[in-house]
Amino acid sequence: MPEAYTLSVSDAAEQVRSGQLAPTDYANALLDRIDSHEPDLQAWVTIDREAVISDARQREQEPSQGLMAGVPVGLKDIFYTAGMKTTACSRIYADFVPEYDATCVTRLKEAGAIILGKAITTEFATSDPSPSRNPWNREHTPGGSSSGSSVAVASGMCPAALGSQTGGSTCRPAAYNGIVGLKPTYGRISRFGVVPVSWSLDTVGILVRTVTDAAILLQAMAGYDANDPGSAEEPVPNFLDEIGRHSGPPRLGLLKTGYFFDRSTPEVRQHTEAAAAQLAQAGAVVEELDLPDSFTTASDVQRIIMNVECAAFHEKFFRHRADEYGPRLRANIEMGLLIPSVTYLQAQRLRREFRRDLTALAERVDALLMPATPAPAPKDLNTTGDAAFQAPWTSAGLPTVVIPSGLSESGLPLGIQFAASPFAEGRLLGAARWCEQALGLDMRPPAYA
Amino acid sequence: MPEAYTLSVSDAAEQVRSGQLAPTDYANALLDRIDSHEPDLQAWVTIDREAVISDARQREQEPSQGLMAGVPVGLKDIFYTAGMKTTACSRIYADFVPEYDATCVTRLKEAGAIILGKAITTEFATSDPSPSRNPWNREHTPGGSSSGSSVAVASGMCPAALGSQTGGSTCRPAAYNGIVGLKPTYGRISRFGVVPVSWSLDTVGILVRTVTDAAILLQAMAGYDANDPGSAEEPVPNFLDEIGRHSGPPRLGLLKTGYFFDRSTPEVRQHTEAAAAQLAQAGAVVEELDLPDSFTTASDVQRIIMNVECAAFHEKFFRHRADEYGPRLRANIEMGLLIPSVTYLQAQRLRREFRRDLTALAERVDALLMPATPAPAPKDLNTTGDAAFQAPWTSAGLPTVVIPSGLSESGLPLGIQFAASPFAEGRLLGAARWCEQALGLDMRPPAYA
Repeated sequence: MPEAYTLSVSDAAEQVRSGQLAPTDYANALLDRIDSHEPDLQAWVTIDREAVISDARQREQEPSQGLMAGVPVGLKDIFYTAGMKTTACSRIYADFVPEYDATCVTRLKEAGAIILGKAITTEFATSDPSPSRNPWNREHTPGGSSSGSSVAVASGMCPAALGSQTGGSTCRPAAYNGIVGLKPTYGRISRFGVVPVSWSLDTVGILVRTVTDAAILLQAMAGYDANDPGSAEEPVPNFLDEIGRHSGPPRLGLLKTGYFFDRSTPEVRQHTEAAAAQLAQAGAVVEELDLPDSFTTASDVQRIIMNVECAAFHEKFFRHRADEYGPRLRANIEMGLLIPSVTYLQAQRLRREFRRDLTALAERVDALLMPATPAPAPKDLNTTGDAAFQAPWTSAGLPTVVIPSGLSESGLPLGIQFAASPFAEGRLLGAARWCEQALGLDMRPPAYA
Repeated sequence: MPEAYTLSVSDAAEQVRSGQLAPTDYANALLDRIDSHEPDLQAWVTIDREAVISDARQREQEPSQGLMAGVPVGLKDIFYTAGMKTTACSRIYADFVPEYDATCVTRLKEAGAIILGKAITTEFATSDPSPSRNPWNREHTPGGSSSGSSVAVASGMCPAALGSQTGGSTCRPAAYNGIVGLKPTYGRISRFGVVPVSWSLDTVGILVRTVTDAAILLQAMAGYDANDPGSAEEPVPNFLDEIGRHSGPPRLGLLKTGYFFDRSTPEVRQHTEAAAAQLAQAGAVVEELDLPDSFTTASDVQRIIMNVECAAFHEKFFRHRADEYGPRLRANIEMGLLIPSVTYLQAQRLRREFRRDLTALAERVDALLMPATPAPAPKDLNTTGDAAFQAPWTSAGLPTVVIPSGLSESGLPLGIQFAASPFAEGRLLGAARWCEQALGLDMRPPAYA
C-alpha cells in the first residue's frame, strides 16, 4: 500500500468513499508531511491543524460521496476563507479575515474536500518572489505567483491546490515543479472571493499531479456565478466523460516556428521535439502549425491590461501606502496609473482579435502543443521566471494544461503545454491525459519522493 | 380626412394595411412636404426620391401586414444604409457608402417601413451644431444631436425617425421640438451598423409624435443581435400589450428636489409642478422622491466615459485629420486622449453603482417624472442646448421617454420626461401614454401645422 501522501485526488477520494482510507488518517499523514518539509520548502502561510482534523472527523461522521470526498486541498492565500486570514502575502491585507468563502472554495467543500491551509503566494499574486523553494533544487525558484501551491503539491504535502493565473502564475510553476497545472477558460470558474490582480485576465488555476485530478477539481468548481461579472454562462459538461470521449490518440498542433522556439533554450527545443516524436510514435497525429500575426503583440497587450486593472484595484490603498508594496508590483501599479484610457481600450480590442485568431487556430486540432517554459526553473531566487509561454493564452482566455515531460540535464523538471479553444477543456484534458500515459513518467523530486 | 402628412405611424400603417392609403400616395405627400419646408428647416442630408417611390410601389405590389406597413421613416445619417451614403455629417465619412444596412434598419424594413432618407445630425452625433432649424422658431436651436430627425418629425416631413442618444441626443431635441422621444434601455436595440460615439453609452433613439408610435418602432427593432457586443439577451415582450396592461392611472415619482429643479428655470419648475398637479387630478398617484447621492457625479462620469470611448474610436482618423473635426468634438477627443485608464475604469465602476441606485429608485413607481430640459430650446444656433436632464439616464442605461406638455411664454415647446427601470419600457410607455391622454394636447408648430 503506497504512503497516503503519494495518493492522487482520484485514488484518495475513491479510498475514502469505499472506507479504505479514513479522512483523519489521510489529513494527519499530510500534516506530518508538512511538519517534515515545511522548514525546507516554505509553502504555507496558515495551517489550522485543529480545524483540519475537526473537518476530517466530520467527514468521517457524515461520509461524503463527493468527487473529492475527504481530500485535503491547499488554497493560494488569495482565496477568501471565512474566519481564516487571507493575506495575499501582502502588508496591505496582512490582517484581513474574510467573512465568507470564495465561491470556488464553497464548491470544493460541497464536493467533499477539506481545506488544508493557505499556501504562500507572491505578493498579491504578482511578480515579487516569495520565500518558497523549488523541491527539485532549493537554489532554484519554484516560479510564481502560485509558488506555495505548486511546491506543496510537488513535495507531497497535498494532492491538489488552487492557484490563479493572470499572466503565467499556474502553468509556469507547474512546469518548474514537475506537476500538472490547469488554467481553464476565462470565466469557467468563479473568481468571487478571490483577491484580484486584473479582473479581465484573472483565472482560477488548478495544481495537481495527474490530468484526471485536474478534471476532478475543474468539475467540482466550474459553473456560472452571478457574483462574478466575468463568469461564463457556458454549460458545464461531465469532464470525466469528456476525457473518456477523447481517449484516443489526439491530433496535436505543434507550435515550433516563431514565438515559442525562438524564446526557448536549445535544450527545451530539443526536448519538445523529442516529446512530440515520442507522442507521434505512440499514435498521435502531430502537425506543425504557424502562429497568427497577432501573437507578436499579445504579451504587450496582456501587460498593458494587467497593469491598468491592477492599478485600478490597488489605487485606493496605493495612494497612502505605496511604500508597503514590493518593488515589482509597485512598478506595475505606477505603470498602470500612467497608461491612457485609449491605450487600454485599444489593447482590449487587439485582445479580442487575438482571441478570435487563437480560437481559429486551436479549432484545427484537439490540442496545440508547445514547450511549457523557455527554460527550466532559473537558479535565481530573485525572480519567478518567465511567463512568456503562458501570458498569450491567459490574454486570449483559452484553456491550457501543463504536464511534466522529463528532466533537464541539471535535473530539473521540463514540461509541455497544451492549449485548446474556449470551453473545450474536455477535449484538452483528454489529449493531455493520452499524452501523460504515452510518456509514462513518474516525476517526483528525489529528496521528497 | 386629415392630410396624410399629419398621420401617426399607427394610423398610417392601419390605413395602408386596410387599403385606404396607398404607400405611393403617402410617400409622395411626405416628399411634397419636404419640398415645401426643407429650405426653411434643413432636416435632410440625402433623399433618394426614386428609391422611395420605387420602394412604395413595391409595397403596393407586395402588401405588408407589418406593424409599419408602408410607413416612410427618416434615419439620422449615422445609420448604415446599403448603397446610400452615411456621412455622420462629417468630413471624415463624407464619401462613405456602407455595403449593408444597420440591423435596426433591416428590422424596420421587415416590419414594412420605407426608408425616406438620411436626416441631418450634428457632426458624428456630438455637440457641434448642425444647420437644422427649430420649426417652432427658426432662431432657436432644434437641439441635437438628432436634429434633422426631430425637425422632420415635428414639421410633418415624416411620422417617425431614428435618432441616437449618448448624452441627451434623442430626448432633448424631442422636447425642444414638441414631439415624443424614446431612449430605450441600453442594449435593447442593436447598434450594429451605427456609427458610434461611445459604445458603452450609445443607444438607438426613436422620434415620433405619439407614445403608441414609440412602442411600434421599439417593437419593430428590439431584440438581441450577436453583432452588437452591447446587445442584451433580455426577452422582448409585446410592447403594445404591455401598454394595455399598464393603461390605468400610473404611480409617478416626481423628481423635484436637488438636481432637476436646481437646474431648471422658474418657468420650467412651475410648468412641471402644474403638469404633475394636472396628472394627479386626473387620477395619477404622484409622490415626490429624492435622488440618490450618486446623482451628483453622474454627469461627470458620463462625460469621462463618452470622451474616452469617442477618442478610442476616432484615434485612427484623428492622428492625421484632426483639423477636419468641429471644435467641440475635437476638444472632446483631445480630452479623451488625456484621461488615464484608471480614471476611465473608476468611472465605469461608479456608473455601475449609479445604475444600481437608479434602478432601485425607479422600481418604487411606474415611472419617474421630471422636466425634460432645464429650459425650452435656447435662442442660439451656436449650441444644441443642455443635455443635463438626459445624460444621467443614458449613463445608467435606464429607458426614458419625453412627451410634450405645453408651451413656454415664448411659444416654444416644453416637455416632461419619464424614466423607468431597465427593460421596463412597457410600463414606462403605459405611464407615458396615460399622461399623454390626460394632458390632451395637440402640439404642432404653428407655421407647419
